Amino acid sequence: MSSFVFPARSTTAEIELGTTLQPKFDADGLIPCITTDHLTNEVLMFAFMNAESLAHTLRSGKATYWSRSRGKLWCKGEESGNVQRVKAILTDCDQDVLLLKVESIGGVSCHNGYKSCFYRQLSEDADPSDEASLKLQFVARRLIDPAKLYKK
Amino acid sequence: MSSFVFPARSTTAEIELGTTLQPKFDADGLIPCITTDHLTNEVLMFAFMNAESLAHTLRSGKATYWSRSRGKLWCKGEESGNVQRVKAILTDCDQDVLLLKVESIGGVSCHNGYKSCFYRQLSEDADPSDEASLKLQFVARRLIDPAKLYKK
Repeated sequence: MSSFVFPARSTTAEIELGTTLQPKFDADGLIPCITTDHLTNEVLMFAFMNAESLAHTLRSGKATYWSRSRGKLWCKGEESGNVQRVKAILTDCDQDVLLLKVESIGGVSCHNGYKSCFYRQLSEDADPSDEASLKLQFVARRLIDPAKLYKK
Repeated sequence: MSSFVFPARSTTAEIELGTTLQPKFDADGLIPCITTDHLTNEVLMFAFMNAESLAHTLRSGKATYWSRSRGKLWCKGEESGNVQRVKAILTDCDQDVLLLKVESIGGVSCHNGYKSCFYRQLSEDADPSDEASLKLQFVARRLIDPAKLYKK
């Protein structure tokens, strides 16, 4: 899928407590990526990267994902202008997840016009045996009309 | 895999801008879950849930995941005591990711003895064409010896 090669996985000790990046790409060549605001830690979005998009992110300094729906590299903000400048990249203990800390240019990371994709919270009364109780409440304000975000 | 049923997926408009929880479980019955500290927003860990673990989380108020490696329900902290009390559950625009805000009892969410699983940061000089540059730096302090965390 990609000609970019990251260091191979080695021992559990090296992966979990070592100092070499050895990311685990799954059978589809993808690794989950959590993106947060570098100042507030707020989770902005969740997406996937492949080796090519990780390499592109490192080279450009701008968050670049792999769009599974479109099957292509997704340079965040290339249409909307809401580019994410990467301030830090972390990985987790078993190196099968990435965490990006970004400066969100424009302040809108969600295609629906919100700062974060996580703009709805499950009701505190949610009961799995009562479908009617499984309600979401909006906990964020829409910052821009999506129609203005993508003005192609 | 599970007898717990959440509301079925409906229209894109309802999924993205509606008020009914309609989580997307993938072909394996799983949904990614990001867990953060409810006070600081720091990302503590990333795991998967299935319908059963989401139902268990809602009923118990304690974060419960699905362990893919062990193929069973994973009540976080049942061995280590580091239970995560759920303060809020959010979902993203297309409802295929969950975000938990938790109070981490004991303050250690990583099995390696760190507050967060994301205790290593990629070097700012990382260059995808230079494998030797792909180095991780520890950015957190280990809080407890893992041997003391799991004293079975």
